[in-house]
Amino acid sequence: MTEDFDRHNTKMAKKKAARDKIMATKTEEKGLIIIHTGKGKGKSSSAFGMIFRCIAHKMPCAVVQFIKGGMNTGERDLIEQNFGELCEFHTMGEGFTWETQDRSRDIEMAQAAWAKAKELILDDSRRMVLLDEINIALRYDYLDVAEVRDWLLANKPPMTHVVLTGRNARDELIEIADLVTEMELVKHPFRSGVKAQAGVEF
Amino acid sequence: MTEDFDRHNTKMAKKKAARDKIMATKTEEKGLIIIHTGKGKGKSSSAFGMIFRCIAHKMPCAVVQFIKGGMNTGERDLIEQNFGELCEFHTMGEGFTWETQDRSRDIEMAQAAWAKAKELILDDSRRMVLLDEINIALRYDYLDVAEVRDWLLANKPPMTHVVLTGRNARDELIEIADLVTEMELVKHPFRSGVKAQAGVEF
Repeated sequence: MTEDFDRHNTKMAKKKAARDKIMATKTEEKGLIIIHTGKGKGKSSSAFGMIFRCIAHKMPCAVVQFIKGGMNTGERDLIEQNFGELCEFHTMGEGFTWETQDRSRDIEMAQAAWAKAKELILDDSRRMVLLDEINIALRYDYLDVAEVRDWLLANKPPMTHVVLTGRNARDELIEIADLVTEMELVKHPFRSGVKAQAGVEF
Repeated sequence: MTEDFDRHNTKMAKKKAARDKIMATKTEEKGLIIIHTGKGKGKSSSAFGMIFRCIAHKMPCAVVQFIKGGMNTGERDLIEQNFGELCEFHTMGEGFTWETQDRSRDIEMAQAAWAKAKELILDDSRRMVLLDEINIALRYDYLDVAEVRDWLLANKPPMTHVVLTGRNARDELIEIADLVTEMELVKHPFRSGVKAQAGVEF
């Protein structure tokens, strides 16, 4: 058993040396374009997790919610009540489009949200701006993907992280992103009759 | 254009009807076993996102960090300084195992973390307990996966959510989980020399 442990420790020492060597080459700091997409859970909640990390580090940040006016109210209340001076919060959408059934209003909302997003991103005192569910607005062509891509490439301040969430991220954005994660659904309790629950879904 | 909009609105109305019908069958509330795994980002940050949702809803909760003593310090500080009365926080691990190179100490730490986790879960006033990076401890056999599975099945209070994070989730746990998400890495900036950054990684 002691021999096993020694072997393990030696292996881990090698792993550490290899890892340290790799990490030593990672020296650059820059503002990233980050995308969370896929059908699984965690796209918005991990983006909010990063917003809370920013808040923890006293880094000014902001959130624009593009679509789901009705959800993620938990995070909004928590941020507005406790950390409003560090994190501006704008909810522009009015629920998913199948709730509103009014495409022209959806487009207006998405355009207003994008205008606000641009304003927030341009102020480089902010270190992270979360564009929550913007991918949905792009998928339904409420926003022009080429315009969003070109604007980000031309105007995002170098140290600002911009996080874009939502299913079906457009290829045009994936191409310019630095960090892309696809949340894959492996198992979901809705399938067995469990409803959306506080703490988990909202 | 108006015709297009009408067609869109009709389509969305149908979508809403279908969705409402499905959602009406989702009536059960229960405490879930939730797993975040995969090589992508967002496993821990989305779990912390859920913890912040619980805090927002004033639901008592708790976090046990099994492995990464050195990371996720942002969340810990934020929670301890602002929401300590709602969310107990225990950091038991001392960095990844290749940092410590001491298997027997790692096992001791993991066992102590699991003992604390059981105590926290058994108190059913808590609605969510996050076992952060427990999958790493299970993968290296610092904990016995059959014991963890059997204990959760036998003892988890019915309304308590238990969230288990980390790469390489064991099949034994995926089998008993209600909600499993795999975070897939699509693009990562480490590949191009960017280092771990505050707000994004910790």
